[in-house]
Amino acid sequence: MPGPLTLGQIASRLGGRVAGNAETLVAQVGSLEHATAQQITFFSDPKLKAKLTATRAGAVIVDAAGEGMTALPRIVCDEPYVYFARVSQLFNPTVRQAPGVHPTAVVAAGAQLGARVSVGPGCVVGEGVRIGDDSCLYPRVVVYPGCTLGARVVVHAGVVIGSDGFGIANDAGRWVKIPQIGGVRIGDDVEIGANCTIDRGALQDTVIEEGVKLDNLIQVGHNVRIGAHTAIAACTGIAGSTDIGRHCMIGGAAMIGGHLKIVDRVVISGGTAVPSSILKPGTYTALFPIEEKSAWARTAVLVRRLAGLAERVKALEGKDKNG
Amino acid sequence: MPGPLTLGQIASRLGGRVAGNAETLVAQVGSLEHATAQQITFFSDPKLKAKLTATRAGAVIVDAAGEGMTALPRIVCDEPYVYFARVSQLFNPTVRQAPGVHPTAVVAAGAQLGARVSVGPGCVVGEGVRIGDDSCLYPRVVVYPGCTLGARVVVHAGVVIGSDGFGIANDAGRWVKIPQIGGVRIGDDVEIGANCTIDRGALQDTVIEEGVKLDNLIQVGHNVRIGAHTAIAACTGIAGSTDIGRHCMIGGAAMIGGHLKIVDRVVISGGTAVPSSILKPGTYTALFPIEEKSAWARTAVLVRRLAGLAERVKALEGKDKNG
Amino acid sequence: MPGPLTLGQIASRLGGRVAGNAETLVAQVGSLEHATAQQITFFSDPKLKAKLTATRAGAVIVDAAGEGMTALPRIVCDEPYVYFARVSQLFNPTVRQAPGVHPTAVVAAGAQLGARVSVGPGCVVGEGVRIGDDSCLYPRVVVYPGCTLGARVVVHAGVVIGSDGFGIANDAGRWVKIPQIGGVRIGDDVEIGANCTIDRGALQDTVIEEGVKLDNLIQVGHNVRIGAHTAIAACTGIAGSTDIGRHCMIGGAAMIGGHLKIVDRVVISGGTAVPSSILKPGTYTALFPIEEKSAWARTAVLVRRLAGLAERVKALEGKDKNG
Repeated sequence: MPGPLTLGQIASRLGGRVAGNAETLVAQVGSLEHATAQQITFFSDPKLKAKLTATRAGAVIVDAAGEGMTALPRIVCDEPYVYFARVSQLFNPTVRQAPGVHPTAVVAAGAQLGARVSVGPGCVVGEGVRIGDDSCLYPRVVVYPGCTLGARVVVHAGVVIGSDGFGIANDAGRWVKIPQIGGVRIGDDVEIGANCTIDRGALQDTVIEEGVKLDNLIQVGHNVRIGAHTAIAACTGIAGSTDIGRHCMIGGAAMIGGHLKIVDRVVISGGTAVPSSILKPGTYTALFPIEEKSAWARTAVLVRRLAGLAERVKALEGKDKNG
Repeated sequence: MPGPLTLGQIASRLGGRVAGNAETLVAQVGSLEHATAQQITFFSDPKLKAKLTATRAGAVIVDAAGEGMTALPRIVCDEPYVYFARVSQLFNPTVRQAPGVHPTAVVAAGAQLGARVSVGPGCVVGEGVRIGDDSCLYPRVVVYPGCTLGARVVVHAGVVIGSDGFGIANDAGRWVKIPQIGGVRIGDDVEIGANCTIDRGALQDTVIEEGVKLDNLIQVGHNVRIGAHTAIAACTGIAGSTDIGRHCMIGGAAMIGGHLKIVDRVVISGGTAVPSSILKPGTYTALFPIEEKSAWARTAVLVRRLAGLAERVKALEGKDKNG
Repeated sequence: MPGPLTLGQIASRLGGRVAGNAETLVAQVGSLEHATAQQITFFSDPKLKAKLTATRAGAVIVDAAGEGMTALPRIVCDEPYVYFARVSQLFNPTVRQAPGVHPTAVVAAGAQLGARVSVGPGCVVGEGVRIGDDSCLYPRVVVYPGCTLGARVVVHAGVVIGSDGFGIANDAGRWVKIPQIGGVRIGDDVEIGANCTIDRGALQDTVIEEGVKLDNLIQVGHNVRIGAHTAIAACTGIAGSTDIGRHCMIGGAAMIGGHLKIVDRVVISGGTAVPSSILKPGTYTALFPIEEKSAWARTAVLVRRLAGLAERVKALEGKDKNG
């Protein structure tokens, strides 16, 4: 771990303006609640003002609006959370696995690994796979034959890339398998969370564009495309052939149907099922607020009786007109 | 990859009738959009007629209704999609892992493997496991002791078969484990997608009958039975002791409760929670259409106020009667 | 497997009172439906009385209410299901993997394993990991560096502990990674189901307290705390920084949002999305009953037209007042 830095040194590397004592030394990042005098924290949400007042951090990253809310030494910048991320990167330079192929990994003779690629214990990399420079496969990642990963791709433990898509045709009650002859193409700077599954395409490739970030336990069906810089939270499933745009944000446990089109800059709430295309940027949801069980049971019954209620209102309107 | 075939050769192997030049050579399958002159595609959905008109495929598989919609050389058959699957199998004979046990796999001395079974790198096969002829375990599959797999079973990477079911009894706030002494029985021709988990039974076995197809990241609880030739899409969870019939189709991210009975030939929409048994064949759903967030918030509030609305209608009806 | 025991012997070890022939020998547990004359079953649900009448079990565990419902030799106790669990443990002493590190596992030099710890084939245990006495890692578990597991922890195959949390900050459309410098702390007597993923904390640790039981394919986000003796069924996702109390029970495929507080003794129905905190013990749900598709489509349309319906009722009320 790098040594401590003064606020002045940090600002000279990352930009921003120091207010208060620029010689203040910090050695690590911390949260408003838990940071110590040797740590720097950040503040960007006015709702947390009480925590800012109470923090024992040695310094704080704020935006212009927050500058006057604390007497602590501070760095003033436009995006405190992004700035905090960069400070944390200074103090915590990525310590991934060492480059090279672990002796327990199985890499096919015809696979092509770029410079400084790290392949962790228990990984299996199939024939014809190509992996770009500085990429890292944590333990027990499986990449089926013929898939390609870009540079600086990070794949967490247990991920499966290139398994067969779910392509079956029903022949009088029996399922006939459709060979999945496409591959998977993953762009630069993609990160994929633990135990995700990304199927190979049926005919063309499944595509994950550059800068996409996937959380854990996400399923990406065959021939899906995920546009650049889209982020998807854990437990989401994306059914086959769906095309998701760039710069989307998809909440956890979203359930996205197949053969849909979702345009750029769409935000989908966690836990939301998406049965149809979304052709306009915006924030979408279909989530009911949770209720105590008995209250909910009453609501659910009323929802199922809505047709009756509508009929009764119509009848009243009719009487009203005729009465 | 096998060499090219004429339409006449294909029809002589798979049936169907050639219309147009039966000497047309094709060497691979492709989609309506991407197929080249050396490829054969299929057409079965009238909504895609514009794509049929625009296709650059060398030939097309159609049904009688589609025969007149194109001048391309074509094979006419009853089920173009099934026929397409079979043509693809001709051009892409399954290239699974080579038969045999990979040196990095760990197979217990008492496990019984049938003829030509393939056990991939990193697999772990426990004591007393039996696997039928021609089955294939892709890398990193774990089969706990005492489970049985039929013939021609395909298990994709990362699958866990036979882990303990979730059997716990609450003893004054502490959980007491109920030993899971059943096993898992998997029939012939089953395919299981990447990172699925299939728990062993508590007392009797968990059973997956012949011809079942499971997509990725599916959870099968203890003592579940999945009837023959049922297909289940990714991210679905099936809680313990539920009995699912034959020839069912279950959409992705379905959430199926425990101790339920679902009869044969039931179709369940993706993203649907199933809290009670389904005793009649049909198509079932409980999915709301997605909405833009502000519209949805209004809807959700109104749903919670339904009881009040119903009361008001009742009051109006009372006045109407008495007025 | 231990030999048969008389009911008297069982009661002398586990408590309870024998009614009928205390010399009755049983050698295994079984269900009401499948138990044979050499097996003991349990009865606690009056709805299953017909099954009790029909059972071929040699003996049955009942509570006081059930004592008079059968003439079979029986053990009378307060909690038949818990008692059954303990009898099953007598006949099925846990046969986990043998203690020790399997030769195909990769354990970092600096990891500390307690007495009798079992590390199965293909496991990867990182630098600085500590694992308490008698814990068991089934095959292919990955524990990232710096995580700690208590005593008697059972981790099923394919689990990933300590992968990076989903911490990213958006810098003008590009995602900047926030180093995840917290760890994971898992208490004594925790059991974790197959293919679960448990992320390390961003700044502080992710914490799973003693006695927690997790089913399969569960995602635990960074900085989550799960209180002692809480049980969570399969396919549930818990987003980052959420604090779940002690003695909660969470149904399968629940979707729990981030930064929430759920107090002790909360029960959440399976398939339920939880978008807000739950500050009062109780049972919560947000699940609609499933319907046949055409009926549901009508319901869904009516729900979206609720605003219109409410307007019409208001209009009628206005006329009523003015009329």
